[in-house]
Amino acid sequence: MEKLQVDNALIKQFRSWFSHNDTVALREQLVQMYPPDIAAVIDRLDTDEARQVMNALAKEIVVKVLVEMEEQGRENFLSTFTPYDIANEFIENMDSDDAAYVLNHFPNAVKEEIISQLQDIEYASSLLNLISYEDETAGSLMAVELVKAYQNWTVAQCIEEIRLQAENVESIYIVYVTDEMERLVGLITLKNLILAQPSSNIADVYNKEVISVSTSTKIDEVANITKKYDLVVLPVVDPLGRLVGKITVDDVVDLIKEEADEDYQLMSGITEDVDSTDKVWVLSRARLPWLLIGLLGGIASSRILGMYEGQIMIHPEMAFFIPLIAAMGGNVGVQSSAIVVQGLANDTLGTRNIGQKILKEIRVALVNGIICSALILAYNLSVNHAYELAITVSIALITVIIFAAVFGTFIPMFLSRLKIDPAIATGPFITTSNDLLGIVIYFSIGRLLYNTL
Amino acid sequence: MEKLQVDNALIKQFRSWFSHNDTVALREQLVQMYPPDIAAVIDRLDTDEARQVMNALAKEIVVKVLVEMEEQGRENFLSTFTPYDIANEFIENMDSDDAAYVLNHFPNAVKEEIISQLQDIEYASSLLNLISYEDETAGSLMAVELVKAYQNWTVAQCIEEIRLQAENVESIYIVYVTDEMERLVGLITLKNLILAQPSSNIADVYNKEVISVSTSTKIDEVANITKKYDLVVLPVVDPLGRLVGKITVDDVVDLIKEEADEDYQLMSGITEDVDSTDKVWVLSRARLPWLLIGLLGGIASSRILGMYEGQIMIHPEMAFFIPLIAAMGGNVGVQSSAIVVQGLANDTLGTRNIGQKILKEIRVALVNGIICSALILAYNLSVNHAYELAITVSIALITVIIFAAVFGTFIPMFLSRLKIDPAIATGPFITTSNDLLGIVIYFSIGRLLYNTL
Repeated sequence: MEKLQVDNALIKQFRSWFSHNDTVALREQLVQMYPPDIAAVIDRLDTDEARQVMNALAKEIVVKVLVEMEEQGRENFLSTFTPYDIANEFIENMDSDDAAYVLNHFPNAVKEEIISQLQDIEYASSLLNLISYEDETAGSLMAVELVKAYQNWTVAQCIEEIRLQAENVESIYIVYVTDEMERLVGLITLKNLILAQPSSNIADVYNKEVISVSTSTKIDEVANITKKYDLVVLPVVDPLGRLVGKITVDDVVDLIKEEADEDYQLMSGITEDVDSTDKVWVLSRARLPWLLIGLLGGIASSRILGMYEGQIMIHPEMAFFIPLIAAMGGNVGVQSSAIVVQGLANDTLGTRNIGQKILKEIRVALVNGIICSALILAYNLSVNHAYELAITVSIALITVIIFAAVFGTFIPMFLSRLKIDPAIATGPFITTSNDLLGIVIYFSIGRLLYNTL
Repeated sequence: MEKLQVDNALIKQFRSWFSHNDTVALREQLVQMYPPDIAAVIDRLDTDEARQVMNALAKEIVVKVLVEMEEQGRENFLSTFTPYDIANEFIENMDSDDAAYVLNHFPNAVKEEIISQLQDIEYASSLLNLISYEDETAGSLMAVELVKAYQNWTVAQCIEEIRLQAENVESIYIVYVTDEMERLVGLITLKNLILAQPSSNIADVYNKEVISVSTSTKIDEVANITKKYDLVVLPVVDPLGRLVGKITVDDVVDLIKEEADEDYQLMSGITEDVDSTDKVWVLSRARLPWLLIGLLGGIASSRILGMYEGQIMIHPEMAFFIPLIAAMGGNVGVQSSAIVVQGLANDTLGTRNIGQKILKEIRVALVNGIICSALILAYNLSVNHAYELAITVSIALITVIIFAAVFGTFIPMFLSRLKIDPAIATGPFITTSNDLLGIVIYFSIGRLLYNTL
């Protein structure tokens, strides 16, 4: 079995098998592929072709492919089945976290209809429970499949339990240990289980150092904990401390990547989670909100500049440096806000208060402001020989840089205190407000200096 | 043992123990803490205080804390030891990947001096090997500690091997199977090992579906593979297919987070990996390059605008919309480039060619350009009643939006073809070049229209 590049040649190959009805060759190719690669192929086929691939797959592979597919394709595929079939052909054969994930893409009524059709009542009840957890919490991410051992068991009993659960729980690295009330008290790795004597008591060999989260823990904390303590599985307990599920590191990896992609897009002025293969109108809609904010900012700028029309007519050279002042304010603001937003997300801000943080940003801004202002002063004096303009631009620039730094630091910290995602305050928001601020500062200083000098 | 918040109160508590020489209380606290939390405390203490904490820790905990500490603190701590002690007290007790990581922060000569002092010659030779791999490759990230079984072994022999390696290899989830030439042929999970009969042959129970990378595989591919195939450990083979190491998912998690943070910072115009607790001059230096680029862009803008001085004097109202045109060009450019850069990084761009991708961006830009231009037209006609200005601004805006989209799409794709990290072309670079482009378009159209209308 080979991991392979899903490229145009492979898709062409698949299409030639469809047109020749060559199911033998199709199956031969498919058994050599991993489910994520099959899903990547299906994502590039149309609905009919996708069904032909699915029909050629073993049942246990179909559910794995379904979970890896893009949402639209999965919806198209499942839409041809009855709720009963969706429940007992597909959902039934998925791990509970995957099942909850797939179910959560259906409207509430459909979701419950599908679950109610499940033959396995116990599983249905677990799923009902899982889909009831709030979004973005550990409960909504966890799987209920896990192997647990009671404190008073022997190692042999624990191994027997693994044997019983083997089919149900695909990957087992760690067995969690609970007391008779199902409360999590520790863990034992499979490595230590293998090394222990079968007759040993679990109580004597298990590790009491167990890190867990509660069902209501936010997923960014789940990610931070998994990363910090290098975990492969993270157990989830209910408010009474009872073990109710586990979160595996592969889901945390996906989570971290998704959050990072979202922050990156927010920073660049894109509001929805999109990728470059999405439709034109989806891509347009995701970008429009920030463009409209930029438009409003531009209109506001034009009105402010309108108030200085007389000044611009007398000193048109002042207009020349509008882009410089606006751009530098925007750049500094984005830099400062990025550092703060990242610090907040990674919990590396320390516990210093907002005041100290802003003071430090002012010092950084002062250093860079002095350097930039000195350079532009030298340029203007030597090239333009315009004394008033040179001084106006330099004083305005350093002022704008400091204000932008304060603003870029303060706004995300303020939003975070209000429990609003500070990431929305980066990118276009900071740029637009600093554009405005910069122009006001620049022309106020200009009016003052031209009248004084 | 509790995961705990490392806050001011805890640091204060530590300092009071130091001042009262209360090593009993200090030790009591420390045994209840995980190494990453101890490292977080040490990162906030001065060098002397850090040493007091280290002295209170068991040897095997010290090395774990060392690996988790910030670079500066680790350097300060290690600098008081001789190469011999660094080698045999610390490096010797680390996993090889951690040891290579710590060693790679020393200058080359020091690195080799430390390794040459190691008593364990075999380990020294492994480390020499590890530090020789190129940066950013699987070889530089892997650990050599792993459990492998030969194809012709029995399950019992394999379990005996785990017992022998138990102390050497901390976490074992998977045993890799090789042929007699050490070539990787498959794997067996500890779960399946437990479930198999001790007398079974490994050849009959191992899984031939094994995904591996080579020592020269780039780390972003390592990250993509681990994420795509939901792996917990990824085996690394040499060019002859021989198993030489493994990469664990916790390192991949760190990798993904670091790459994401770096891209985020690049996007926001910060060139080095910094965080908000760094020193003022480090923060200033990391930001200055992009500010200087912005400054150059601003100067270039001023020269272009200088060429239109006459036009600005006659129509000062044209200057009012300079910020709007510049900001919108910048925003659209950043949006387009972000989508492309992300698509390239995640390998989700598909195999469509640059031409198709740019055509799609033009369609997205057209939709948003028409909406924004229509809005600003309506505003200018109804509020400013300035016919020429209204038409100039709207035509310039839609032109700038389309150019910015093309530019923002093309540049990162072009850089990627040249094997240059496309992420450097986002943020300030795109903003600055689109500012310039926007002004040229705006005033060219303005000159044309004012003369014609």
